[in-house]
Amino acid sequence: MEKQKRFILPESEIPTQWYNIVADMKNKPLPILNPGTKKPLTVDEMTPIFCRACAEQELNSTDKWIDIPEEVRNQYKNYRSTPLVRAYGLEKALDTPAHIYFKNESVSPVGSHKLNSALAQAYYCKKEGVTNITTETGAGQWGAALSYAAKVFGLELAVFMVKVSYNQKPYRRLIMQTFGAQVVASPSLGTRAGKDILTANPTYQGSLGTAISEAVELALNTPNCKYVLGSVLNHVSLHQTVIGLEAEKQMEMAGEYPDTIIACFGGGSNFGGLSFPFMRHNILDGKKTEFIAAEPSACPKLTRGVFQYDFGDEVGYTPLLPMFTLGHEFAPAHIHAGGLRYHGAGTIVSQLIKDNYMHGVDIPQLESFKAAELFAQAEGIIPAPESAHAIAATIREANKCKEEGKQKTILFNLSGHGLIDMTAYDQYLAGDLTNFELPQEEIDKTTSKLEKII
Amino acid sequence: MEKQKRFILPESEIPTQWYNIVADMKNKPLPILNPGTKKPLTVDEMTPIFCRACAEQELNSTDKWIDIPEEVRNQYKNYRSTPLVRAYGLEKALDTPAHIYFKNESVSPVGSHKLNSALAQAYYCKKEGVTNITTETGAGQWGAALSYAAKVFGLELAVFMVKVSYNQKPYRRLIMQTFGAQVVASPSLGTRAGKDILTANPTYQGSLGTAISEAVELALNTPNCKYVLGSVLNHVSLHQTVIGLEAEKQMEMAGEYPDTIIACFGGGSNFGGLSFPFMRHNILDGKKTEFIAAEPSACPKLTRGVFQYDFGDEVGYTPLLPMFTLGHEFAPAHIHAGGLRYHGAGTIVSQLIKDNYMHGVDIPQLESFKAAELFAQAEGIIPAPESAHAIAATIREANKCKEEGKQKTILFNLSGHGLIDMTAYDQYLAGDLTNFELPQEEIDKTTSKLEKII
Repeated sequence: MEKQKRFILPESEIPTQWYNIVADMKNKPLPILNPGTKKPLTVDEMTPIFCRACAEQELNSTDKWIDIPEEVRNQYKNYRSTPLVRAYGLEKALDTPAHIYFKNESVSPVGSHKLNSALAQAYYCKKEGVTNITTETGAGQWGAALSYAAKVFGLELAVFMVKVSYNQKPYRRLIMQTFGAQVVASPSLGTRAGKDILTANPTYQGSLGTAISEAVELALNTPNCKYVLGSVLNHVSLHQTVIGLEAEKQMEMAGEYPDTIIACFGGGSNFGGLSFPFMRHNILDGKKTEFIAAEPSACPKLTRGVFQYDFGDEVGYTPLLPMFTLGHEFAPAHIHAGGLRYHGAGTIVSQLIKDNYMHGVDIPQLESFKAAELFAQAEGIIPAPESAHAIAATIREANKCKEEGKQKTILFNLSGHGLIDMTAYDQYLAGDLTNFELPQEEIDKTTSKLEKII
Repeated sequence: MEKQKRFILPESEIPTQWYNIVADMKNKPLPILNPGTKKPLTVDEMTPIFCRACAEQELNSTDKWIDIPEEVRNQYKNYRSTPLVRAYGLEKALDTPAHIYFKNESVSPVGSHKLNSALAQAYYCKKEGVTNITTETGAGQWGAALSYAAKVFGLELAVFMVKVSYNQKPYRRLIMQTFGAQVVASPSLGTRAGKDILTANPTYQGSLGTAISEAVELALNTPNCKYVLGSVLNHVSLHQTVIGLEAEKQMEMAGEYPDTIIACFGGGSNFGGLSFPFMRHNILDGKKTEFIAAEPSACPKLTRGVFQYDFGDEVGYTPLLPMFTLGHEFAPAHIHAGGLRYHGAGTIVSQLIKDNYMHGVDIPQLESFKAAELFAQAEGIIPAPESAHAIAATIREANKCKEEGKQKTILFNLSGHGLIDMTAYDQYLAGDLTNFELPQEEIDKTTSKLEKII
């Protein structure tokens, strides 16, 4: 009997509810604050920027299970369930006793997990009569997903794409435009936030924090327009739990349960999406699964950040979030994993780190590309530079298994493919990529400016 | 009850045999000829270029069913079955009574159906002790597939990539290099064929015919090296029948049988792969399915070519093939569908056209991109420019259904995605793409040079 390689759920088994880990957390995340009053943010204070349904999910969700609207489920069926894959090729290349599985979110039509939340948020906006939406994007995975979701639900979309990625990854800009979205390099001259940043630093290549400022500002100044976010916030992670809920059933099909779960970490949505459904068994059922968030050494908020209230964006338009952060003015180096160039971690994840349910590891850029190349040659899939961080962390764990002669079951999230990121591979293959040292004083410079609320 | 959108086979249902339509054809294809003797080519004459297993499959296969080697089936499991998808989004956008299905080969890790034959051919070469292989590629779908297949089976690969595509599609070159292949723009100065062509026409941007000449020449001059072809020949179409065999079972799951089957047409491998298993029911069981091959107006061998013996390559290194052809010296316009820029149709397909089992339609470049944009916005998948021809032909049929008020079931092959072809979309969106008129005298110029053997 040959071994099964891919595990796919029938359409009838695609989850009909998302999982809200907050309901099960013993220590709830600290509240999001109104920066003016320093009091917990209310839904009414959030709705000038966000649609009401997302604001409700963000602030008031106490239900453990939240129904996925039928319109969103119908769209999920276009690409879900995504396969759970046993990485026999990678295991062989590493000569490891570990059993390695990955959840392949790269098969979504836009190439990443981001569509799971894009469809949900676009649907909620449409349902509330919103006509226009704005967002930020780093490498463009989120922007591409939202561009398609906006088209599905008949919304106009403007995307602020971090300038360094706008230039590094022209194809992803073109994908957004093919889906009908407007794309602007950020910082731009079209917003007050962008103008101020460019005035202070004309060659600034942008960051997710800056792009968020611009998108929020545009939403506030445009009639019937809401802002939509691709990560960080609770409701985004919530929508992504469809990943882990599927993976749970698929691991059961494979007859194993993960000892270690790994995902890359930018704002936390693909990490939370895969992890939270499994983590509930650590919280409730005494399971001992280890959860590892793989972040880039160039933007190490989990391993080197401080836990403090901070803004979600560069300028300070957003509410104050309790998070592990490098400071909202932190300008990360120009690594190719544009989706991981964000200064802070979401409020749920930050609490889970404090409570030792998970931990971060930091991966230098060269190690991530070496892992990506090995994975591509072993499994045939060229991973996104972001996902390559999860692969690198997985390889570290698998090598540990080999050294210690232990058989562990490792599950990681292949959050996206890297077919649009080939210039990064070009530079890697040519030997032109470097690691980025990040001296402690760089971190201190931006974290020391944070108001001490905690 | 919600309608099912995607149909996927369990691993146990992935075909274990390929289907050889020649066994069922009432009129067999004319033989391939040795150009020197004009006698039917023998396996021994073919093996200086091809591995023996492929030569046997090409010339001597009388079996109707041919076992897929276990090593190849194990690799198929990495991405097969590919989904059969009901295109509800496209149906809605067209407001057509037609039921439209597509077989989504774009989910293969390299992005197209090409991997189905690449894995088989690389396996056979490896099994015969070959260490090096060479090939041609147009847009790069075949080259990318073979690069991964070569890596899987431990072979060194050199790819001659048509120069216009080499420049239009740098990402696909980088994908090949990431998998470890050598990639050369064709015509190159590294072969006699390339040098002669460049001497005659220094700015020539290449064609599949030229790239084949270069690859064959390198194979002949390199120790323990075989040439591997991505389309046209019988054994390549044979390997691709896994597509149609799956689709047959999946259409049964959907409870329908196609009235019309459509695929784009370059050398014929994705067309034959989807069509032949269904066509056997036309041949044997009196089914009346219509088969449509969608070719570009700029390279219309099926609709405007002659049926004659011709070389498979520009220079004339290959045996003589009986085919619908524009002449092996035909230089197609620089359309973005690089995989369709080939002068001739395979011998099986050519016979099937003569026997009225199928017919061609020609699609202008702008119509193909308009169809691609509509499909992308309706289904979320950006199609390869090649596959866009199949979509355009499908839209024509679906619109006919609407005009005539008829409900037909249409199945087309989404042979690949276009994520690496975004510069083509860029030009389309900017209004910079054009159609190419092809005056009859252009075709006469190259077809009139063909020796009259038939």
